Amino acid sequence: MRKGLLMVFTGNGKGKTTAALGMAIRAAGHGLKVCFIQFIKGSWHYGELDAKERFSDLIEWHVMGKGFTWKSENLEDDAKLARDAWKMACEAMNSGKYHTVVLDEFTYLLHYNMLELEPCLEILQKRDPNQHVVITGRYAPKELIEAADLVTEMQPIKHPLKKGVKAQKGIEF
Amino acid sequence: MRKGLLMVFTGNGKGKTTAALGMAIRAAGHGLKVCFIQFIKGSWHYGELDAKERFSDLIEWHVMGKGFTWKSENLEDDAKLARDAWKMACEAMNSGKYHTVVLDEFTYLLHYNMLELEPCLEILQKRDPNQHVVITGRYAPKELIEAADLVTEMQPIKHPLKKGVKAQKGIEF
Repeated sequence: MRKGLLMVFTGNGKGKTTAALGMAIRAAGHGLKVCFIQFIKGSWHYGELDAKERFSDLIEWHVMGKGFTWKSENLEDDAKLARDAWKMACEAMNSGKYHTVVLDEFTYLLHYNMLELEPCLEILQKRDPNQHVVITGRYAPKELIEAADLVTEMQPIKHPLKKGVKAQKGIEF
Repeated sequence: MRKGLLMVFTGNGKGKTTAALGMAIRAAGHGLKVCFIQFIKGSWHYGELDAKERFSDLIEWHVMGKGFTWKSENLEDDAKLARDAWKMACEAMNSGKYHTVVLDEFTYLLHYNMLELEPCLEILQKRDPNQHVVITGRYAPKELIEAADLVTEMQPIKHPLKKGVKAQKGIEF
């Protein structure tokens, strides 16, 4: 008896995308297929991108369009990109092809109202009941938390970037 | 300028070992060497163990002895295993061979007084200043948190096992 879980890694601490990457590798370690979709440009880095080659048979990686840099001078263009990316995510969730679909940094699209919350929640709740979904990002809306089966809040107790240590290869990227 | 970071993923929520696994994969994605040591039997499962084969050139995986099940009838035997495992971790940290050394579920050895805290902290603090170390597990002692550069507390907001959903392949193991 399998039940598709909606899992959310949120909060301001380090470890959200990292844990989603670990989930993807864990599923692939079982020979299960994963679709990993990055919604925000720059949240991924070379470490993840190079690792993907070793799992190219089991994990599909998508970096959405140009991503969202939040520096656009045309919010309508950004909203269109957000809708296209979400449409692609919906297709992945309804394809029956994947054990797990990861929507990395997806919460920002909701938080910044690039997408409407209610229709997104409805699609998530009406998805294939076997489909596992992992959503990461800060500021998860409370309605998303209510809809989720598993939620972990990554709370920053200490972070070296606050102490002036530069981001380092293999750690932050 | 590299500075070896001491990172701790603690708290009762899901995502601690998963994030450490993601960190290991991220470093390996850069071609950097990792030593991943499991201190508690059963915290690892087939997903991780199968994934290890794809990174066997970059990530060394160690499951310590018989692990610690906390069901031993001989606490002295357990303490001896703990000391042997820690000795091996110290050798890995001082070998200069690894970008990152992961001590998965290590906090339990401190919490349950299988090891003395002060000498362990001293070794961690006097290690090679380039050596990154990731420690996971609940109940991280406050002295360890004080010594760390980065600490994230994984807080459980919701967990499906509390609602009677069984552990599933590719998710919990």
